[in-house]
Amino acid sequence: MQVNTQNSETYQEWLLKSYIDQMSQTHTNTALSWRRLYLSRAKLKAISRTSALLSGFAMVAMVEISIDNDAPGGNGTEANGGEKASSEAGVPELLLIVFAICTTLLVSVHLLALMISTCILPNMEAISNVHSVQAVNESPHEEMRLCVEVAWVCSTGIGILLFLAEIAILSWVKFYRLSKNAAIASTAIVIPAGIMFIVFSLVFYKRLMAHKYQSHSERLRQLDDLARELHTNDDGIHIV
Amino acid sequence: MQVNTQNSETYQEWLLKSYIDQMSQTHTNTALSWRRLYLSRAKLKAISRTSALLSGFAMVAMVEISIDNDAPGGNGTEANGGEKASSEAGVPELLLIVFAICTTLLVSVHLLALMISTCILPNMEAISNVHSVQAVNESPHEEMRLCVEVAWVCSTGIGILLFLAEIAILSWVKFYRLSKNAAIASTAIVIPAGIMFIVFSLVFYKRLMAHKYQSHSERLRQLDDLARELHTNDDGIHIV
Amino acid sequence: MQVNTQNSETYQEWLLKSYIDQMSQTHTNTALSWRRLYLSRAKLKAISRTSALLSGFAMVAMVEISIDNDAPGGNGTEANGGEKASSEAGVPELLLIVFAICTTLLVSVHLLALMISTCILPNMEAISNVHSVQAVNESPHEEMRLCVEVAWVCSTGIGILLFLAEIAILSWVKFYRLSKNAAIASTAIVIPAGIMFIVFSLVFYKRLMAHKYQSHSERLRQLDDLARELHTNDDGIHIV
Amino acid sequence: MQVNTQNSETYQEWLLKSYIDQMSQTHTNTALSWRRLYLSRAKLKAISRTSALLSGFAMVAMVEISIDNDAPGGNGTEANGGEKASSEAGVPELLLIVFAICTTLLVSVHLLALMISTCILPNMEAISNVHSVQAVNESPHEEMRLCVEVAWVCSTGIGILLFLAEIAILSWVKFYRLSKNAAIASTAIVIPAGIMFIVFSLVFYKRLMAHKYQSHSERLRQLDDLARELHTNDDGIHIV
Amino acid sequence: MQVNTQNSETYQEWLLKSYIDQMSQTHTNTALSWRRLYLSRAKLKAISRTSALLSGFAMVAMVEISIDNDAPGGNGTEANGGEKASSEAGVPELLLIVFAICTTLLVSVHLLALMISTCILPNMEAISNVHSVQAVNESPHEEMRLCVEVAWVCSTGIGILLFLAEIAILSWVKFYRLSKNAAIASTAIVIPAGIMFIVFSLVFYKRLMAHKYQSHSERLRQLDDLARELHTNDDGIHIV
Amino acid sequence: MQVNTQNSETYQEWLLKSYIDQMSQTHTNTALSWRRLYLSRAKLKAISRTSALLSGFAMVAMVEISIDNDAPGGNGTEANGGEKASSEAGVPELLLIVFAICTTLLVSVHLLALMISTCILPNMEAISNVHSVQAVNESPHEEMRLCVEVAWVCSTGIGILLFLAEIAILSWVKFYRLSKNAAIASTAIVIPAGIMFIVFSLVFYKRLMAHKYQSHSERLRQLDDLARELHTNDDGIHIV
Repeated sequence: MQVNTQNSETYQEWLLKSYIDQMSQTHTNTALSWRRLYLSRAKLKAISRTSALLSGFAMVAMVEISIDNDAPGGNGTEANGGEKASSEAGVPELLLIVFAICTTLLVSVHLLALMISTCILPNMEAISNVHSVQAVNESPHEEMRLCVEVAWVCSTGIGILLFLAEIAILSWVKFYRLSKNAAIASTAIVIPAGIMFIVFSLVFYKRLMAHKYQSHSERLRQLDDLARELHTNDDGIHIV
Repeated sequence: MQVNTQNSETYQEWLLKSYIDQMSQTHTNTALSWRRLYLSRAKLKAISRTSALLSGFAMVAMVEISIDNDAPGGNGTEANGGEKASSEAGVPELLLIVFAICTTLLVSVHLLALMISTCILPNMEAISNVHSVQAVNESPHEEMRLCVEVAWVCSTGIGILLFLAEIAILSWVKFYRLSKNAAIASTAIVIPAGIMFIVFSLVFYKRLMAHKYQSHSERLRQLDDLARELHTNDDGIHIV
Repeated sequence: MQVNTQNSETYQEWLLKSYIDQMSQTHTNTALSWRRLYLSRAKLKAISRTSALLSGFAMVAMVEISIDNDAPGGNGTEANGGEKASSEAGVPELLLIVFAICTTLLVSVHLLALMISTCILPNMEAISNVHSVQAVNESPHEEMRLCVEVAWVCSTGIGILLFLAEIAILSWVKFYRLSKNAAIASTAIVIPAGIMFIVFSLVFYKRLMAHKYQSHSERLRQLDDLARELHTNDDGIHIV
Repeated sequence: MQVNTQNSETYQEWLLKSYIDQMSQTHTNTALSWRRLYLSRAKLKAISRTSALLSGFAMVAMVEISIDNDAPGGNGTEANGGEKASSEAGVPELLLIVFAICTTLLVSVHLLALMISTCILPNMEAISNVHSVQAVNESPHEEMRLCVEVAWVCSTGIGILLFLAEIAILSWVKFYRLSKNAAIASTAIVIPAGIMFIVFSLVFYKRLMAHKYQSHSERLRQLDDLARELHTNDDGIHIV
Repeated sequence: MQVNTQNSETYQEWLLKSYIDQMSQTHTNTALSWRRLYLSRAKLKAISRTSALLSGFAMVAMVEISIDNDAPGGNGTEANGGEKASSEAGVPELLLIVFAICTTLLVSVHLLALMISTCILPNMEAISNVHSVQAVNESPHEEMRLCVEVAWVCSTGIGILLFLAEIAILSWVKFYRLSKNAAIASTAIVIPAGIMFIVFSLVFYKRLMAHKYQSHSERLRQLDDLARELHTNDDGIHIV
Repeated sequence: MQVNTQNSETYQEWLLKSYIDQMSQTHTNTALSWRRLYLSRAKLKAISRTSALLSGFAMVAMVEISIDNDAPGGNGTEANGGEKASSEAGVPELLLIVFAICTTLLVSVHLLALMISTCILPNMEAISNVHSVQAVNESPHEEMRLCVEVAWVCSTGIGILLFLAEIAILSWVKFYRLSKNAAIASTAIVIPAGIMFIVFSLVFYKRLMAHKYQSHSERLRQLDDLARELHTNDDGIHIV
């Protein structure tokens, strides 16, 4: 690049700089958009795997444990005559209601996360396979961000806490007639575990936010340095 | 490119422009066709995974829960003498009919989606492996679009709603004799969950449509800008 | 390419054209062969996945449901004394025969498809991994085409229809003593589903054939245009 | 390549040809070795998948069906007093022996195939990951060829036939007391299926051999043509 | 690079060296960061696989074994009248409490590991897909290091030891009434196995640390050599 | 490369040769190290797959078969009064002890292999993802070699033999009361199968060693030829 006079130089430099600014701005936006696309895709994949696994376990537990609970209750009914008597002698009704609510909620929450994942993921996969950088702008992942976050919280947050609760309730249903102490011991372990889950979630969220803030501010500082450097070069010797 | 007179220039430019138009048109069509191919392929893959999972759960639930329901009923029959008496004392017939209908429908819907996926997917995979850009025109995915959409709605839409209904019916069958309140509680959770599923479907559909409309109109605007720019260049200095 | 006289030109052109013809012919044949290889491979993979899944479900259903059916029947036998009496009081023998036939047929058909897939697939995988274009000619997929089609029809066509029938029979076996209406309702859903499966198969086959015919005729038309164009160029100015 | 006199030319040509011969010979041998490596690897992978699946089914069937068969037998024993009486009244001992033999054989055969696959596969995977063409010569797949073929026949040949036999025996064990006709019907389907399996194996083997012979003879013919062509070129104009 | 005088040379060399130092420093840091990213990602993947597997087994064991333990206990209760009597006659309450604690702890520990893996993995996957070397600096894996290590120890360390303990307790629950010697034999195998696990962990940790120390000190030595070499070159002939 | 006098030539050649020697030595060592890394990685992957599968089957067999064995035994206890009486009338205690030992050993061995695989594999995966050839030197796979071999022998050698033994013991437990002949027949098949496993292991080991010896000696011969060739070139015309 041959530069003749200071004025034209400044003008050309301004052109170049504004062009670079715009380009890098566009480029940065596109790169950020791709990163968000990859993050959403990875989240949805993790959701679909975790939710399929946990809802499967919940289903199996419901079908299998109900058999067990039903069988002696049924025999008891025939021996004792009345249904209410059997359910009073066996597992109390409240426990069954809580068990039914927890299992249904657990399966529903994971199914919702699974459905969101199944709906949005193909649109992202299709964009990821296209080898054009600009294709990311036609991906609906920015509009669907809220949905992805909802699915994420459903599957990882609420879903795993409900699963922990399910285990405690399940051991109550199992051990109610044999040994209440076993059920109490099981509950005594699940409660601190649940608290640890929530603590980890908060720590994870805080660190992620702190990390994002830090990398943003660092990038800003870098841009600032770059701007100052370019400014300094304007006044002195031009090294391009 | 050396340009001598305005006339020949215009003619050559017209040639070039029309060629570029045609090329970019063809290119855009091909690119769009590939994107639709990738989208259909990703959908069919998601369908095959989800449908295999859910129909498997439904099968297991049917086989396992029927055992349970049958066992005490069978013992009761022998004790009480008649079959009708047993089914009246136990689970009412209407519930069994609804359960049979829901399970059969669920498995059929997912099997249909699975079959469509198994039929069409290999044809797309074969095209995707060929490293020729024009190969997309020989893919049958445009003709099969309706089938893919039917499989998609069967698997993700109807299939997941039926699965939710199945859970409610299943808990009715399980808890009918032990505690009707547990079954009612389970149903009370499934109904709002079902409504949330439908709401999410509509929101997803609306956003997807809005996104498609927006990206289409933006592309049109870009083409318009390009056309105007080319037009301006015709009258002034030619920068090619 | 500098051309001096019309005669030598025509001769050279003829050479070039015949060479290109031959090359493109060979190339087209090789490309078509690769595409058929990819299609067969994708089909065999889909077969092996679907067949393993469905034969697994059928196996589990047979083992599990037989337990259930056997258990009360066994108790009934001991109480009532004779075997025939038990099978008459319980599930009729004809139903059991149909159930045994359907399950055995289902598992056999899927095992046959699985075996064909396991035999042929490795030969194709080995060819696909070799990075030589001509390697496709040493792949046995053209000779094995009939086998692939047989496995395909066994797994996707007959296999899925048999699976639907299996569900209907299974619900008859399950609900026979509890509620014949539930079994009838289940059958009433399976029959239209089966018809829809056959209709989809025919639509899919027709569309695939129409698509193949169309893309073949279009390719012929293109070759025709190319030939005419080359012919025209012979007489006029040569633009190569 | 500048050629001065006929003599030196012939000598140089001879050098070149012998070099090309050697190179292509080496290259062809290496390429063939790679292809055999890929084929063995693909076979071992297919073996490990199929054997894990089928041995799993056999294990589950043995554990589950034994429960079922054992339960009423056990009750019968207590009611009737003696063990022999129970096994005579129930399933005959010969059937149990055949069932035990078939299941053990099935699991052993698939375990053997699985073990061979687990032993040899890592050595091949390690070679495949090395990006050196000559690495194939250090792969032990040529020495292990017999083992791979044994595993292949164990898993695909004997293994699937034994699995078919297992289904027939299993339905005999299940339906023996309920309905002998169902077991007979099941056997009547398994026998022609087994014959079809053997026929397919023979057809597959014959076609594969025919294909190999054909592609070998074609390659020989091509080499012959090449040799004749090179010979002709020696006498006439040299086009290199 | 032509060098004229000693002074300018020294200055330029100093510039170059400091630049190279800085570059290689940055490069080394980035490379190390990538390596740590890959290591964390591989660990989290292994965690998610192992934890899903083992927590699944624990769940199934709890549901299935409880059925078994509950069934005869239930029958015993009805026969003997009181609940305490049954649990005293059958499995002692302490064993049930230990069993409940171990199972709940096992599932909680693996769920915690699974949750950490599901939370952090998508952020790393998104970074890994971006083809920019500097992207690693925006990955939160350095901040999340402690979490990854906690998940790692939970899943591989505590998780597998608890699983071993679970097997011993499980065989106590199973064989308590049939044969206490079988349970003792089982425990006698689990204890040395547990010791071997801990020994392996320590050996593995020590070797890993020794390896890290060795490769660090070797790298330091290499840098030292490089520095000395550069120093020597400064005084003598410059070979760049 | 222009060579003037014999002496300097010799010196330069010596330099070049020693450099090439060193390079090729380093290169060969690095390549060998990578190959060992890939081999260890492939082994660990195979271990983790096989061990997860077989320990899963063993767990399921233990849980399921214990139910079956426990149930009639439990009923028998109540009928006959004493525990010892029941276990003497049913399955002898020795068999239960052997069964408990075999199952615990089987699960422990596979868990150990799984744990070693889970610990070492991530460190190798992280190295494999780094695209630097020298990175292999920082992989701990040479130090961990013994661990990998232990895991390998545990999983493939001892693990599969124990699994075979488990099947024999399992059929003894199952068929003990129904038909001792079935258990004897099952054992009669397992014993030759076990012998075949050991024979295959020895054949495999011998062939692998022979292959390694052969490829080592061949490489030595090649190096020898190369050295002699370079030596010959020193004395004659230099063709570089």
